[in-house]
Amino acid sequence: MNETLADLGEFALIDRITKDLVRGPQVRLGPGDDAAVLSLDGALVVSTDAMAEGVHFRNDWVSAADVGHRAVAGAVADIEAMGAVPVGVLIGLTLPKETRVSWVDQFMEGVREECEAGTVSLVGGDLTAGSAIHIAVTVLGQTRGQPVILRSGAQPGDAVAYRGRLGWAAAGLAVLMRGFRSPRAVVGAYQRPQVPYGAGLEAARNQATSLIDISDGLIADLGHIAAASLVVIDIDTGTLPVPAPLEAVAHATGRDPVDFLLSGGEDHALAGTFPFGKVPPLWTVIGRVEAPGGRDPAVLVDGTEWLGTRGWTHF
Amino acid sequence: MNETLADLGEFALIDRITKDLVRGPQVRLGPGDDAAVLSLDGALVVSTDAMAEGVHFRNDWVSAADVGHRAVAGAVADIEAMGAVPVGVLIGLTLPKETRVSWVDQFMEGVREECEAGTVSLVGGDLTAGSAIHIAVTVLGQTRGQPVILRSGAQPGDAVAYRGRLGWAAAGLAVLMRGFRSPRAVVGAYQRPQVPYGAGLEAARNQATSLIDISDGLIADLGHIAAASLVVIDIDTGTLPVPAPLEAVAHATGRDPVDFLLSGGEDHALAGTFPFGKVPPLWTVIGRVEAPGGRDPAVLVDGTEWLGTRGWTHF
Repeated sequence: MNETLADLGEFALIDRITKDLVRGPQVRLGPGDDAAVLSLDGALVVSTDAMAEGVHFRNDWVSAADVGHRAVAGAVADIEAMGAVPVGVLIGLTLPKETRVSWVDQFMEGVREECEAGTVSLVGGDLTAGSAIHIAVTVLGQTRGQPVILRSGAQPGDAVAYRGRLGWAAAGLAVLMRGFRSPRAVVGAYQRPQVPYGAGLEAARNQATSLIDISDGLIADLGHIAAASLVVIDIDTGTLPVPAPLEAVAHATGRDPVDFLLSGGEDHALAGTFPFGKVPPLWTVIGRVEAPGGRDPAVLVDGTEWLGTRGWTHF
Repeated sequence: MNETLADLGEFALIDRITKDLVRGPQVRLGPGDDAAVLSLDGALVVSTDAMAEGVHFRNDWVSAADVGHRAVAGAVADIEAMGAVPVGVLIGLTLPKETRVSWVDQFMEGVREECEAGTVSLVGGDLTAGSAIHIAVTVLGQTRGQPVILRSGAQPGDAVAYRGRLGWAAAGLAVLMRGFRSPRAVVGAYQRPQVPYGAGLEAARNQATSLIDISDGLIADLGHIAAASLVVIDIDTGTLPVPAPLEAVAHATGRDPVDFLLSGGEDHALAGTFPFGKVPPLWTVIGRVEAPGGRDPAVLVDGTEWLGTRGWTHF
């Protein structure tokens, strides 16, 4: 049970990882040669995400399977955020030689389950030894005849809306940081984000003018839309639903639940802007886009500057 | 001059890295949004490579610019090895907070120069903090109407040929491991591999039946072709050119120069099989493909099993 990668060897590990992979119709050639081959419908949309143990995850807070789920979910959300259709992922995995084979098995189980949830195929990867666990996920998508939705298209008068979860992962992290494991709902949300798969294409089909996934926090990420579109975005906190588990965590930790909603990242909700009257049914309208009127592009909260936490930055 | 990433900050660093990028005609959208967008000519060919400081490179043997060259060259060679045309790369970069900004500047200079040499565009990436330098390069290519060349198509009677360099990087590494810096030619070959860009498409156009890039060593990598094609490959060492610098290093280190040629990786030569009479002019014929005749697929050297070094494996 305590077999390590050094015991198993590189090629046996690769065989184990790539066995019985399920491949979507776009995949002409999966792992095993120098590269994978895919036939895409429309243009290629591609993004890469790097994750490091101790920075993006702690092995005492998330299981190996959770790490697999998180790695794939966070990457695939970037393709959704272009209004495109995710198709495949490649995983560059760096592991210490003393890593247990069971850790890799569970990680790959999480990867496979999340690939299934997001309807993407694992098409390739690379495996290498290193001093700590590092995971780089590249995700491929296709436009399927729809235009891509950039951050730069928001127009004054547009509605701001989101679909997915806000603040759940941040509330879960707050609980874990205090040494607790419940409420399970928020801890589970931190461990395995529930990306609103399909919402990207839905936004594209409903004439979204801009789109992003909330990985760093609502204000931080809408800030990228404001900056790219040269607009002001005003969020009406009265429209933000506060789920009961977030209320409970906020109460227990002495925080304002709205703080989780506005600054919490890692749930990978999609947020975007739509022409007035075009917001799809499952999306929640939370504000509107305004002309800058002489001020810098910014995100306002109830008409004024937000003084709370803004979001996560590296370095 | 000693400014670190912690001093500069994440977003300033990203601006610095993505400034003035040159983009090829396939790139519809480069870095700056949630994903890049490319219009490809033919099917997508895609591969990912992970590299770790201390495993794939030592900062006392290679400069930051060399690391950039090596990372891009090794990844792009995988697209060449499919007989495809490289188009773009994405780089997932994990760096300790105390990394000097000058290291990143020089690394990116190497990345840009190698992208130019390989005619690929840097289309995206991710930047994250971690305990050591980790680099994941994903490379995208297109088939441009040519079939991809797999490892599995070698046929008995085919000629085995290569284009590029064999053994130079291994000779350079042997020199560095002994604490020397010369001959410069081989040390330079280790630091900045000279991938025979364009040779992949050339092979595809000349009906290559199988193709691979030599990253682990000629025998090890031809072994993948033998195994996938269920054939025996026999290398005739009398046909292997021994360059003067390799002769010199072999003499100085008491090794057989043929050992460098047969087991040295990291030069990223392309090797493949061609129907008799179809080998392109710049390729060197070094052996032939035979039916297994009851034995396991294997690579023979002058008709017999090779007992020297086989190549590199992780774990």
